[in-house]
Amino acid sequence: LLPKSDSQRHVVAHTADDLLSQIRSGALAPGVRLPSVRQLARERKVSPFSAAEIYNALVAAGAVEAQAGLGYFVTRRRVTRLAEPRRQEFPTDSIWERRRETLGRPIKVDAGCGWLPADWLHGEAVRAALRTAARQPDLHMEGYGNPFGLPALRAHLSTLLEARSIAAREDQIVLTQGASQALDLVVRSCLRPGDVAVVENPGYPPLFEMLKDRGVQMLSIARNEAGPDVDALASLLKRRKVRCLFTNTTYHNPTGTTTILSVAHRLLELANRYDLTIVEDDIFADLAPSATTTLASLDELRRVVYISSFSKTISPALRAGFLAAPPALAARLARAKMTASLGSSQLLEQLTLHVLTQGHYRRHLKRLRERLAAAHMRVASEFEAQGVEIAFQPQAGLFLWAKLPSRQPVGKLWRMAAADGVLLAPGELFRPDGSAIDYWRLNVAQCGGPELLRFLRTLQQLFPG
Amino acid sequence: LLPKSDSQRHVVAHTADDLLSQIRSGALAPGVRLPSVRQLARERKVSPFSAAEIYNALVAAGAVEAQAGLGYFVTRRRVTRLAEPRRQEFPTDSIWERRRETLGRPIKVDAGCGWLPADWLHGEAVRAALRTAARQPDLHMEGYGNPFGLPALRAHLSTLLEARSIAAREDQIVLTQGASQALDLVVRSCLRPGDVAVVENPGYPPLFEMLKDRGVQMLSIARNEAGPDVDALASLLKRRKVRCLFTNTTYHNPTGTTTILSVAHRLLELANRYDLTIVEDDIFADLAPSATTTLASLDELRRVVYISSFSKTISPALRAGFLAAPPALAARLARAKMTASLGSSQLLEQLTLHVLTQGHYRRHLKRLRERLAAAHMRVASEFEAQGVEIAFQPQAGLFLWAKLPSRQPVGKLWRMAAADGVLLAPGELFRPDGSAIDYWRLNVAQCGGPELLRFLRTLQQLFPG
Repeated sequence: LLPKSDSQRHVVAHTADDLLSQIRSGALAPGVRLPSVRQLARERKVSPFSAAEIYNALVAAGAVEAQAGLGYFVTRRRVTRLAEPRRQEFPTDSIWERRRETLGRPIKVDAGCGWLPADWLHGEAVRAALRTAARQPDLHMEGYGNPFGLPALRAHLSTLLEARSIAAREDQIVLTQGASQALDLVVRSCLRPGDVAVVENPGYPPLFEMLKDRGVQMLSIARNEAGPDVDALASLLKRRKVRCLFTNTTYHNPTGTTTILSVAHRLLELANRYDLTIVEDDIFADLAPSATTTLASLDELRRVVYISSFSKTISPALRAGFLAAPPALAARLARAKMTASLGSSQLLEQLTLHVLTQGHYRRHLKRLRERLAAAHMRVASEFEAQGVEIAFQPQAGLFLWAKLPSRQPVGKLWRMAAADGVLLAPGELFRPDGSAIDYWRLNVAQCGGPELLRFLRTLQQLFPG
Repeated sequence: LLPKSDSQRHVVAHTADDLLSQIRSGALAPGVRLPSVRQLARERKVSPFSAAEIYNALVAAGAVEAQAGLGYFVTRRRVTRLAEPRRQEFPTDSIWERRRETLGRPIKVDAGCGWLPADWLHGEAVRAALRTAARQPDLHMEGYGNPFGLPALRAHLSTLLEARSIAAREDQIVLTQGASQALDLVVRSCLRPGDVAVVENPGYPPLFEMLKDRGVQMLSIARNEAGPDVDALASLLKRRKVRCLFTNTTYHNPTGTTTILSVAHRLLELANRYDLTIVEDDIFADLAPSATTTLASLDELRRVVYISSFSKTISPALRAGFLAAPPALAARLARAKMTASLGSSQLLEQLTLHVLTQGHYRRHLKRLRERLAAAHMRVASEFEAQGVEIAFQPQAGLFLWAKLPSRQPVGKLWRMAAADGVLLAPGELFRPDGSAIDYWRLNVAQCGGPELLRFLRTLQQLFPG
């Protein structure tokens, strides 16, 4: 390409834009034949080379078609479509892959999923909140809001946290898009590529993804009935410089276990001795019949970042997560949030506040806990009668960690269940290294219906002993 | 510490939990004196050493207080509070710092901000959508939804994009928490630490933060009236392996300029030659009186990731951003979204769909464009009369890039304006290297009211010539 002066460039650009807008406005109709390159060059007082360049740009824009030997025409169709969708709609090699495989088949029992059925959630309160918001004089429609999130909701959360014995001022609380965004903000603000973080095994798969994505070295310690394996952590800390430990305190995902006080105490001792930040993901806290021990309450938010949400009690659709942290770290995390998403939704935050203040939230929680307790009792007795081995007996929360009554390969069992419309979550999904294990995560609230029991009976018939 | 058997550990843990639950339930009231270490050891059949360990854990939990010489007591206060908030509520060294400095002073004119005033937005339609949603039989409260986002909204966006001459199937569209999350997902999915990305100078500050945070090498090219400086890009690509270019097409932030067709064409030629992904942030597209040229329409979403949102036309509170990308990349970005935030809010997506389908969106856009055009005319004539030099005359969109009628230092001018309740956005905020420049970003929709004109007049009086 020959170098061009600025004024030549300007004429070329102007002519191309002019023709394009005539085509877009319909002044040059689809199918109309355009002047030849030479004609255009004469009309617009540009070189033939520039005229050809103008047409090339219009052809590239899809506005003009070149027909060999005939010249240039205004394109008949406005847009072209790619070929039909490929079969793969979901990303591969993750928990979503497991769901994708069942696409096209009805899921009758979503026995391994991580959420509550719609009618266990607080839907009527969300509806009422929508009506209240619609009548509200100021909807806070403007701007991106306070980086920490809606102040009135943070004030309310400060009070709720006090009931969990956690003293967090409003400027220590950051509202997030679910607990997941809170974890993600901690990963990007507290960990650099090459840093070491410790997770629980089994643990939370999206956290493993976040850490890998960040280039963090992920080590794991076993999750036991009493909490994370503190002895393993202690010996690990002697050998490696670890920056963060991620742990579930109450009704751990996927095992259903709860960290006991003495383990919590030892974790914090280790954190102090080895200068470790503990990220306490406590999203199931409100499902506990009475206030549970939290690392954050022991530590008074000095070394602990406390994370929770209302996805398990109101609805995941509110994306109402939050974190509480030491003030300086909270400010850094709020800034990371602005970078990642320019703030949370003030509208959702108002809806959440309406639900919490006017929606009989405590009464709803009481009922939800009763339903979960009943489901735990029923599932434990029915499933153990079918030879299922339940590792722990949490009696509350969402999950059971269990062995099926068959030692057939995991993939085979999973496909058998899926063929019956039962979607199971194999334990390997929850292992940092993805290695096989013969435990499965079961969600007691999703294990109603006859399909899962029927599948368990079939297993016993097909593979007795 | 002496090694302990598992059964000893169990008794210690059990006793500590038992005492804690008695304290929490009130069975052991605040202020009550507890048994001595020796008594506890006898009662619970543990060693005195274990009994001391139990009390240490309860003290660490804040449930028990040790009083020297007197023994152990149930703590009187449930939670302790940290000292009062520090003055600094907002993160430092960013655009938020600029806002923070004005905290406590009323902002009368938010002349540099990036959003529209509440009454320019589509508030009534959002209210109507809230009412519609409240009556909807199925609110989609359950689960985390489709990783790509609500299918019905993606179908609608596919049609809207067709009007921008962009052919994007539903499986090429990913709904995001504002355009910001879309940018962030691209940064984390397409760039590794050490990769090189090119941004516009001036450009979008949160993007600079995302790239720094990711450890990406950020190079910049000038933003001119016709778009990014393609000659600078061409010479840069000869020297360096660049993976991504980030650019605004329509009404660029902060200059207000729009990329012309021939520049778009050359950008895509370079992208093809040097195997470059172009990330086209086109959030102001709906503010254009007629369909504008987009890189995505020229390229048919082969090398281009197209990003847009409804934050500038409906409300930022809906966080309704989206991206369109080649199918395989869209699937990767959807997966990155699940990792970062377990999906977007199905509730907000339903509200957005209601606004787009029932909210007279086109009529609203027409009115909004007319108001913006009128504001551009008024602000240009009033401000030029006060000696403001406007770099370009976009006549549409939100922004003007302008010099104030004074060569005083930027910080001094900014503080003078802030003292009058006028919040200005200095050009240096929009420079990748943060270096000083005597341009400012002005938002024409926020420049009504007498305060800004009064400030400009004061400037001319104080620093004539």
